[in-house]
Amino acid sequence: MEKERNIKIVLEYDGTRYDGWQKQGNTDNTIQGKLEAVLFRLAGVPVEVAGSGRTDAGVHALGQVANFHLPFSLAGENQEFMGAGKIKDYLNQYLPEDIRVLSAEEVGSRFHSRLNAVEKTYRYQVETGGKKNVFQRKYTYGLGQPLDLEVMRLAAAGLAGTHDFKSFCSQKRMKKSTVRTLKEIGIEKQGTGVTFIYRGDGFLYNMVRILTGTLIEVGLGKRNPDTMDQIFEAKDRQAAGFTAPAEGLFLDHVDYSKETF
Amino acid sequence: MEKERNIKIVLEYDGTRYDGWQKQGNTDNTIQGKLEAVLFRLAGVPVEVAGSGRTDAGVHALGQVANFHLPFSLAGENQEFMGAGKIKDYLNQYLPEDIRVLSAEEVGSRFHSRLNAVEKTYRYQVETGGKKNVFQRKYTYGLGQPLDLEVMRLAAAGLAGTHDFKSFCSQKRMKKSTVRTLKEIGIEKQGTGVTFIYRGDGFLYNMVRILTGTLIEVGLGKRNPDTMDQIFEAKDRQAAGFTAPAEGLFLDHVDYSKETF
Repeated sequence: MEKERNIKIVLEYDGTRYDGWQKQGNTDNTIQGKLEAVLFRLAGVPVEVAGSGRTDAGVHALGQVANFHLPFSLAGENQEFMGAGKIKDYLNQYLPEDIRVLSAEEVGSRFHSRLNAVEKTYRYQVETGGKKNVFQRKYTYGLGQPLDLEVMRLAAAGLAGTHDFKSFCSQKRMKKSTVRTLKEIGIEKQGTGVTFIYRGDGFLYNMVRILTGTLIEVGLGKRNPDTMDQIFEAKDRQAAGFTAPAEGLFLDHVDYSKETF
Repeated sequence: MEKERNIKIVLEYDGTRYDGWQKQGNTDNTIQGKLEAVLFRLAGVPVEVAGSGRTDAGVHALGQVANFHLPFSLAGENQEFMGAGKIKDYLNQYLPEDIRVLSAEEVGSRFHSRLNAVEKTYRYQVETGGKKNVFQRKYTYGLGQPLDLEVMRLAAAGLAGTHDFKSFCSQKRMKKSTVRTLKEIGIEKQGTGVTFIYRGDGFLYNMVRILTGTLIEVGLGKRNPDTMDQIFEAKDRQAAGFTAPAEGLFLDHVDYSKETF
């Protein structure tokens, strides 16, 4: 088999009109699918793109990380060698305007965007005023009610740490471990709304949105901030709060250890 | 005539899908028109809204100021007195999602949003990288070429101050004075682009967009930064640079002297 290059890219996307990250069958309208279509055009052969993780339909990214392999023999239109910068420009030229590659770099052959990720940071935007900021209206959940930041921070302290997050996962049958370490939850006022920041070693399906829904219920006075332990103990999705809508969620960035490169 | 209340509002809007601020005849699709339609619904009589100034089709606002008069007898659905806060909530409920009232307050009967404005601040966003930030794509001019900030700042120094800005006005016949004082032009890197800030006592038709087009031509090396005086002296629109597109322009805020209220 021909030797291959391994390219790591960082990208931002507005997830509003996509069916999420992960490629689907025939009616593909996914971020991964859009990337692979442009790479097929570039390379002339199918190229599989690995993402650091899936994002759901409607979820946005400020710094999603992905990688893919290209044949060493790949040449540009004028048969010149295509460095990572040229590949980035090519992708940006042919990707739709709501997906942008921020950087591209040559990495070692063993690098894998998902397997080597050591930490991810998500952010979730909620509008608590009567109407959403018009410029953020597609990137904010319009709650329209005030939230008590102090009680939400109390609850967040009970959620952070290493726990079995089974109650915060929408997927019914999880064969693998549902234990994760949530290193930090930040809750900040921003404009007329509130932004939640989640930093952890990994996140289960819908976990950030269920954490946010649970914290919102606390912030509205509908749930006691001292009851987070009971949610963990239940190991039951029904024990946690509602799944906050996708539109407010951003994958902020993904961290790798330096040794990976 | 019945005594009237005078309400001052501050509003933000995404100008993308509107034909500008100023009301037009039958096929009205303007910010002023949308506001007046909701106020007619509220008051049951035609209400005229005065803006601090017109914004062109496609131009956005972060802090446009307007005022309008309402009869003292105005009552809400339950016949209760409607304070300014209730009026704001009513407007936000019925205005489309790309227009939001940020604040509303009762002001003296002589206050006029345009006649009493003493200073306006505009901002203009340009993307200099190969592709626009996906979340700002409707609010940024995609130049796609690097700009030399130092030479643009030199030119800006020559543009600031009190001048006859006739060359920077698209309107051919101006009966009134075209002398304005441009107090400050700020030019800053922002992300992968450049933001221009203009603060002045008043702006002519298309003036901010022509100033920006002229500065961009300087920043691209197509125009000498020392030639701004020659543009003023020409008193001819042809002497200045191109009219930068509407999508990158925001009316940032409008200032009034304290005595006005």
